[in-house]
Amino acid sequence: MKTLDALFNPRSIAIVGASRKPGKIGHEILRNLIEYGFSKKVYPVNPNAQEILGIKSYPIVKSIPDEVDMAIISVPAEKVLDAVKDCGEKGVKVLVVITSGFSEVGNEELERKLVELAHKYGMRVLGPNIFGVVYTPQRMNATFGPRDILPGSIAFITQSGALGIALMGWTILEEIGLSAIVSMGNMADIDVAEVSEYLADDPNTKVITIYLEGLKPGTGSRFLSVMRKVTMRKPVIVVKAGRSERGAAAAASHTGSLAGSDKVYDAAMKQAGILRALNVEEMFDWARAFALLPLPKGENTVIITNGGGAGVMATDAAEDYGVKLYDPPEDVKKKFRKYMPWFGSPKNPVDLTGMATPKEYYCAVKEALYEDRIHNIIVLYCRTAVCDPMELAKALVNAVREAKRDDIEKPITVAMIGGEDVAKAMKYLNRNGIPAYPIPERAVSAMSVLIRYARYLKQVREVKNV
Amino acid sequence: MKTLDALFNPRSIAIVGASRKPGKIGHEILRNLIEYGFSKKVYPVNPNAQEILGIKSYPIVKSIPDEVDMAIISVPAEKVLDAVKDCGEKGVKVLVVITSGFSEVGNEELERKLVELAHKYGMRVLGPNIFGVVYTPQRMNATFGPRDILPGSIAFITQSGALGIALMGWTILEEIGLSAIVSMGNMADIDVAEVSEYLADDPNTKVITIYLEGLKPGTGSRFLSVMRKVTMRKPVIVVKAGRSERGAAAAASHTGSLAGSDKVYDAAMKQAGILRALNVEEMFDWARAFALLPLPKGENTVIITNGGGAGVMATDAAEDYGVKLYDPPEDVKKKFRKYMPWFGSPKNPVDLTGMATPKEYYCAVKEALYEDRIHNIIVLYCRTAVCDPMELAKALVNAVREAKRDDIEKPITVAMIGGEDVAKAMKYLNRNGIPAYPIPERAVSAMSVLIRYARYLKQVREVKNV
Repeated sequence: MKTLDALFNPRSIAIVGASRKPGKIGHEILRNLIEYGFSKKVYPVNPNAQEILGIKSYPIVKSIPDEVDMAIISVPAEKVLDAVKDCGEKGVKVLVVITSGFSEVGNEELERKLVELAHKYGMRVLGPNIFGVVYTPQRMNATFGPRDILPGSIAFITQSGALGIALMGWTILEEIGLSAIVSMGNMADIDVAEVSEYLADDPNTKVITIYLEGLKPGTGSRFLSVMRKVTMRKPVIVVKAGRSERGAAAAASHTGSLAGSDKVYDAAMKQAGILRALNVEEMFDWARAFALLPLPKGENTVIITNGGGAGVMATDAAEDYGVKLYDPPEDVKKKFRKYMPWFGSPKNPVDLTGMATPKEYYCAVKEALYEDRIHNIIVLYCRTAVCDPMELAKALVNAVREAKRDDIEKPITVAMIGGEDVAKAMKYLNRNGIPAYPIPERAVSAMSVLIRYARYLKQVREVKNV
Repeated sequence: MKTLDALFNPRSIAIVGASRKPGKIGHEILRNLIEYGFSKKVYPVNPNAQEILGIKSYPIVKSIPDEVDMAIISVPAEKVLDAVKDCGEKGVKVLVVITSGFSEVGNEELERKLVELAHKYGMRVLGPNIFGVVYTPQRMNATFGPRDILPGSIAFITQSGALGIALMGWTILEEIGLSAIVSMGNMADIDVAEVSEYLADDPNTKVITIYLEGLKPGTGSRFLSVMRKVTMRKPVIVVKAGRSERGAAAAASHTGSLAGSDKVYDAAMKQAGILRALNVEEMFDWARAFALLPLPKGENTVIITNGGGAGVMATDAAEDYGVKLYDPPEDVKKKFRKYMPWFGSPKNPVDLTGMATPKEYYCAVKEALYEDRIHNIIVLYCRTAVCDPMELAKALVNAVREAKRDDIEKPITVAMIGGEDVAKAMKYLNRNGIPAYPIPERAVSAMSVLIRYARYLKQVREVKNV
């Protein structure tokens, strides 16, 4: 059993500080665990309760007649050490310490004691000062955040609690599928590097996203050497806040961590193969593409559009993001020309014109899928009367599925501009394996990181083989 | 009567090529005009119909027993000149030529003839190759695009038809209120500068947005001198596509216009006071802020947040976008400190902490509104259990309204991170005069253009006074 298995795949969880009062953190976590459908054992611990939410409660952890892998600690700061001792004597493996009031408010001493005591018993500590942990393959929502996290293959690690909880709700709204959510808090023991390393081996995680404010002093080089290995196996996308001097100062006062010079961070992250996003929207735009799509086998990219304007914007973005637009030779142009009126353009962007129906899109995308010299496809759509967005979405999904049956898999990102029916069609695409975005630039940006990451892997492997 | 009054405030409209067949452009435009609620006269013109959509139809324009200010031409290209002649003899003032098949497909000759003939009769031409024109104060939707455009004070001028129609639908979905939508097409006669000049005087328009691909050869310097005057009166936001070399080539083949060197465009636009957005999402983010908010009276900006992480991201963005964060002196800090627990931060970002309820937000924002040394306010919110997003939205709207009663008006932008209830609260804010965005960076970016534009106006006025 790996060290962090108890954190992501515990066979049983005790909630120390479980409460009968709705609204209390110790109540909400228990309820989330039960109602999200955690299938393993859950033990509320509360000296004054017989039963909470219909589950038998225990006065202390030691009184639980079963092994306990994980204990969630949600008691006031002054009672945390007693709880740790209780857990240690029970043989708990990992502590998820929700409680705040440690180094983040200047109480380094208590935090040091917490970790020391835990380690004495061989226990690891996540936190303190966190909102918990989610692992959807086990239906484990051990947080006091939103409940109905959509399962998927994106892991999300966050150093900010408030932001993390808020983003949980946002991922539900945006239908972003997650494998894991980990609140890091003060990182008194388990840190971002260790969690990333574990998730690199997790078969349910395809891409790791991290909201990072700063590393603890002295942990930078280990972070980078670990991440270098992680990024060889899975894409890692980081939003590193505190880029500006003032932002760094704000981050330092917020998490107590050293934010460090941003230039140093930036160079180091690049070297470690980390993809740095500018903001959380971009981070999840990218993550969605990694979660759903195969990696590019080459750099030749075509844009297929029904609107010249959208094509121009995507072309600009391709240059901004370093996406190489393929110049189709005459024989390839001839193939595309079949699906457009005479005033269309078979060059790249391939402009099917506003007369394109789902059929022309389907045929043109199939040509691109089956053409060996084309590696990546960006599809743009402006709402027109002749092309129903949902029909188009279905046609695209069919094209991709049919190609897959012939062992052809290429990344394809989509941008669709329009009103409510277009928004619905985009949800359909996202649910069926094709990431779709509301403006061309975001579809191009998502494609660009797939290409950048594939390029990185290739370079690193070549260096290794030298 | 100004030249373009007939385009935005026609007393009567003839639709040449009106059709009984749903789906036909000449049918959809008529239906949009009627169903969107145009209050003035509408005359279908069709030699083979007695009545269309319940309205008496006329065989030719000349047979209409009334004055006709605007004629919408939606007949095949080869019949356009006859229609123009008919309109000219009737005394029509402006032609909205929907029909395509002119310079955009190489038929410059026909386009030249169209304009020549129109000018012979003293008529102006919008188009050809356009989807029409909308002016919401007159409930005029003379397009074949989506119908239920939300009235507001943003004017949108677009050189791309497909993109323009698609964005019409998007503005409905996103509840972006528009005063006018103008499809420019080939700009054979009326151009972007002339429309902008007209809208600069339009009392229903507060901000002008333009999707531009390129100007006609020889019109650049007039464009800039006109825009310099327009931007003195109203903010103008432009997405200029074709920034990259390849994008410029695509734009040239798409609209037949010279895209020109982007650096030249960029410098010239800046000099003319035009705010250049990178993409349409950013353009409407900015436009929403201008439409709803007063201009900043100074540069001192405070960020008020309940999440440290969101505060750090906004601080980074403030540096990126050149927003000056105000360092509150002790007396101001003292005011903010009243509304936060001891571990909050009264510095900027003002961190009310995750314990903040709508009341603390309300009080802190009121302090900022009533504090003379603070000019601009950015409010950030991460969804927490103790702060209901709709209650917060209402509290913010109340704070702004109460200050207004005391003649205090300051720009305030909001970012709210969370799930569905947060999305609803943001809609409430937008409907009630406070622009809200889903990530901190976009709220900061929106504030930054208000500041940049106010700075520009100040500089230009100072130069004028020298």
